[in-house]
Amino acid sequence: MRVLITGAAGMIGRKLTRALLGRGALQGRPISQLILHDIVAAEATAPHLALVGDLAASGTAAGLMRHHPEVIFHLAGVVSGEAEANFDLGYRVNVDGTRALFDAIRAAGHSPRVVYASTTAVFGGPFPEEIPDDFAPTPHSSYGAQKLIGEALLADYSRRGFMDGIGLRLPTICVRPGKANKAASSFFSAIIREPLNRLPADLPVPRDWLHTMASPRAAVGFFLHAAELDLGLVGLRRNLTLPGAAVTVAEQIAALTRAAGADVARLIRDVPDPAVWAIVQSWPRRFAATRAKALGFRAEASFDEILQVYLEDDLHRV
Amino acid sequence: MRVLITGAAGMIGRKLTRALLGRGALQGRPISQLILHDIVAAEATAPHLALVGDLAASGTAAGLMRHHPEVIFHLAGVVSGEAEANFDLGYRVNVDGTRALFDAIRAAGHSPRVVYASTTAVFGGPFPEEIPDDFAPTPHSSYGAQKLIGEALLADYSRRGFMDGIGLRLPTICVRPGKANKAASSFFSAIIREPLNRLPADLPVPRDWLHTMASPRAAVGFFLHAAELDLGLVGLRRNLTLPGAAVTVAEQIAALTRAAGADVARLIRDVPDPAVWAIVQSWPRRFAATRAKALGFRAEASFDEILQVYLEDDLHRV
Repeated sequence: MRVLITGAAGMIGRKLTRALLGRGALQGRPISQLILHDIVAAEATAPHLALVGDLAASGTAAGLMRHHPEVIFHLAGVVSGEAEANFDLGYRVNVDGTRALFDAIRAAGHSPRVVYASTTAVFGGPFPEEIPDDFAPTPHSSYGAQKLIGEALLADYSRRGFMDGIGLRLPTICVRPGKANKAASSFFSAIIREPLNRLPADLPVPRDWLHTMASPRAAVGFFLHAAELDLGLVGLRRNLTLPGAAVTVAEQIAALTRAAGADVARLIRDVPDPAVWAIVQSWPRRFAATRAKALGFRAEASFDEILQVYLEDDLHRV
Repeated sequence: MRVLITGAAGMIGRKLTRALLGRGALQGRPISQLILHDIVAAEATAPHLALVGDLAASGTAAGLMRHHPEVIFHLAGVVSGEAEANFDLGYRVNVDGTRALFDAIRAAGHSPRVVYASTTAVFGGPFPEEIPDDFAPTPHSSYGAQKLIGEALLADYSRRGFMDGIGLRLPTICVRPGKANKAASSFFSAIIREPLNRLPADLPVPRDWLHTMASPRAAVGFFLHAAELDLGLVGLRRNLTLPGAAVTVAEQIAALTRAAGADVARLIRDVPDPAVWAIVQSWPRRFAATRAKALGFRAEASFDEILQVYLEDDLHRV
């Protein structure tokens, strides 16, 4: 079993790599090679490969396909804040890069499984209280528009038999370890991560704001499950809205207080940011995710669980 | 007022050109120049221009924008049957051509009104009995996928202020004059057009099949209305499902019988075609079109009206 990960140097890419190395097999077959691709070098030891390049550049995707991957995790992408700030870069990476990869997959001719990282940011308001699976995506960001275009390509290329693709609309992934990224949702992680590190963190939105989240561990679980799922069960609608825990910021803070104490939670400062708040209010809040749940995709049920995953997986407090 | 029509040599493009020349004005201003673009030459007399070229080819779209059109009707495209038969051609014309045009519009910098011909083929089943405006498009054809990608581009480029765009999901346009085209929906017109011309016509689907249609005159009306509409009323959801008459094939035939007699209607032969029937069954049947109706888009209410339009506009029987 040969596996390709694009965006392998990113947070989810690294955790997915570690999970694949840990289990050693996919679809019941031993993993003989992991091909890790990113715009910067990912860590890899033989027999695994770390390849560096721009997916949208001519020949890059074809070069990856020469390794004949049977499962491809397409995680590469520019995040929401960056895609909004840099229009050309966003379209180049998120649209041209994805199409170049899919065209190289088509040219390779062996119809591999493709698991594509999409996003709940494909949705734009106004929303019903809970977003059903057949709710029309009308993005309010260039990132959402670009991911939606990738979804349309994935579904059509799958319908034509060029790949066996599945798109996963990830909820906000939280708690992200490391530094803040350029996503406008970055504060959902920062208000937990920084106080646990005894640093202050600014909260730009009201505490009663509700948002749907899943842990990085759940995200890796989504990708592995999607790689092994019988897609005959999925049919032509290849892009799934995934489940997550719908929690308020206040519930996040209460969980932090329970786990680390009130002194830690007091490091969160309410610093309203009208620009961030405007973006956050345009996001969907709660999803039915009926099909994904029926297909066996699982996420945490509470922020206490999500926080526990962070403590175990990233702070190594078991 | 300078107006550009892409796909101007097509059936709707020619009728739209004639309508614009007839009214002489758009948005209350005299039309000083019509720029008619297509892959084959459209008819034009000075001061109007007929330009020939491939929209996806480098420099073509920028060349069109040098004429500084303030309203652009983007009708150019490869139809459903052809996009399904020729994957590369469909993506080149319907996706690359559209993106090249939109990027040239962005580069021009004056944010013109753009009216984009989309399609109800963006929808794929299973469907509710009546498709609401916020129903998720999941195309079952490459044509539908390509038009959906154009919709996502249009909405994002409009949100960013590069254009003031509106996408129109046209129902099946019927009765099409002239010869059958490569669309799988072609028979909806052929069963009316050929018998009126005393020629037999094959009906590949059952007579109780219901489908939503509008006349070419209604389509031209949609485009003109969209060109003059205050898009502040439309908001961020720039792609509208349009109204039409939801009629069965039997109702089409009854209208034909009323207008031209039973002998003419008897020229329709039931010749089931499993391939066409499979495609047709995958199409949406009935739409709410709530927003479009509220915004003043109007279509015929019955097939009698649609047939009358054909008799008047194409057969010149008043």
